[in-house]
Amino acid sequence: MVMRQIDCWVTLGSTYSYLTVMRLPQIEADANLLIRFRPFNLGAIFKELGYFPFPPNSPKTAYMWQDLRRRAEMYGIPVNLPLPYPAKNSALANAVALLGMQEGWGRDFISRSYLEWFQNGLEPGGDPNLTESLRSVGQSPERVVAFAAGDLGQSSLQQETDEARALGVFGSPTFVVGDQLFWGDDRLEDAVHWALLGRVERR
Amino acid sequence: MVMRQIDCWVTLGSTYSYLTVMRLPQIEADANLLIRFRPFNLGAIFKELGYFPFPPNSPKTAYMWQDLRRRAEMYGIPVNLPLPYPAKNSALANAVALLGMQEGWGRDFISRSYLEWFQNGLEPGGDPNLTESLRSVGQSPERVVAFAAGDLGQSSLQQETDEARALGVFGSPTFVVGDQLFWGDDRLEDAVHWALLGRVERR
Repeated sequence: MVMRQIDCWVTLGSTYSYLTVMRLPQIEADANLLIRFRPFNLGAIFKELGYFPFPPNSPKTAYMWQDLRRRAEMYGIPVNLPLPYPAKNSALANAVALLGMQEGWGRDFISRSYLEWFQNGLEPGGDPNLTESLRSVGQSPERVVAFAAGDLGQSSLQQETDEARALGVFGSPTFVVGDQLFWGDDRLEDAVHWALLGRVERR
Repeated sequence: MVMRQIDCWVTLGSTYSYLTVMRLPQIEADANLLIRFRPFNLGAIFKELGYFPFPPNSPKTAYMWQDLRRRAEMYGIPVNLPLPYPAKNSALANAVALLGMQEGWGRDFISRSYLEWFQNGLEPGGDPNLTESLRSVGQSPERVVAFAAGDLGQSSLQQETDEARALGVFGSPTFVVGDQLFWGDDRLEDAVHWALLGRVERR
């Protein structure tokens, strides 16, 4: 049996990625495929491209919150808005998540970190979100943060970011299926259809 | 009987708006509501916000064409890529479309102009797209272009753009239902659900 797999490039600090994190388990079960998180440092790519999609006080940012709230309600996913944004320590959060993916606790950490952000207003990569989320998955905050903030953790994150950039990734979440990119939580079903059928289907 | 209505702020020159233009008749019939085009000059708003979403050679622009092609195929809408982009004469095309909406031939003009762009590779607001599209809806290109390019046509377009900006519009298409904005062709169904039910529904 071939295990069908989709890579989900994700950056903790992305707001819409919360919907994806919460929706993944059901989607995977329904479609019988595996969606693998690939944490990376989207902030670095934004800097290179010379833009940030959601600057303070812009109409696009105001819209993002309105749209996110509506779609979360549609999916039955709890949100507690407003929340701190943008996340100042996104690079650390993603280096931690990357280590977690390598060690097997990354997925639970990402979920917990998002819940702390969207339900308790604690930004990812900052404290107490980081400490709480790591403890909840049985990891020592001291050990993990020392590694993630250090040279090895940061260079691993940079390598992953290089791979994302080479694929053409410019946002989070981005689903990759073969040579096709699917950007945004609202393209998750498109990515699944592509993985299963080789085409996008109406729903 | 109350005729339910959604305003669709649209700029000729927007690529994803092609999908909306092609999908509208069926959506309106299925939902028994009216979707009214509101042409405006999105380029002016981009300039004020200091960004253009699809610069040449950017990963986001490459993605846009890939995604647009997939979704057009999903809807059974023909596309002939690549096509000239960005459209240099978008402001003129939108001033023409606005006059058309006031005089009753705007919707057919918008459809025809999009078909010329996406099937024949002729950019909106340039010739022969403009002349062909106006003739096809029974209008004199000389009369219409003289008005649209003149002070009255341009100031009307600016007034509409001012209204769009005041609503928080920053992209095309944007559907407005009461105080709710829905940005992008992929939010059309959300806008319809909101107009009918006051909430967004899964589909």
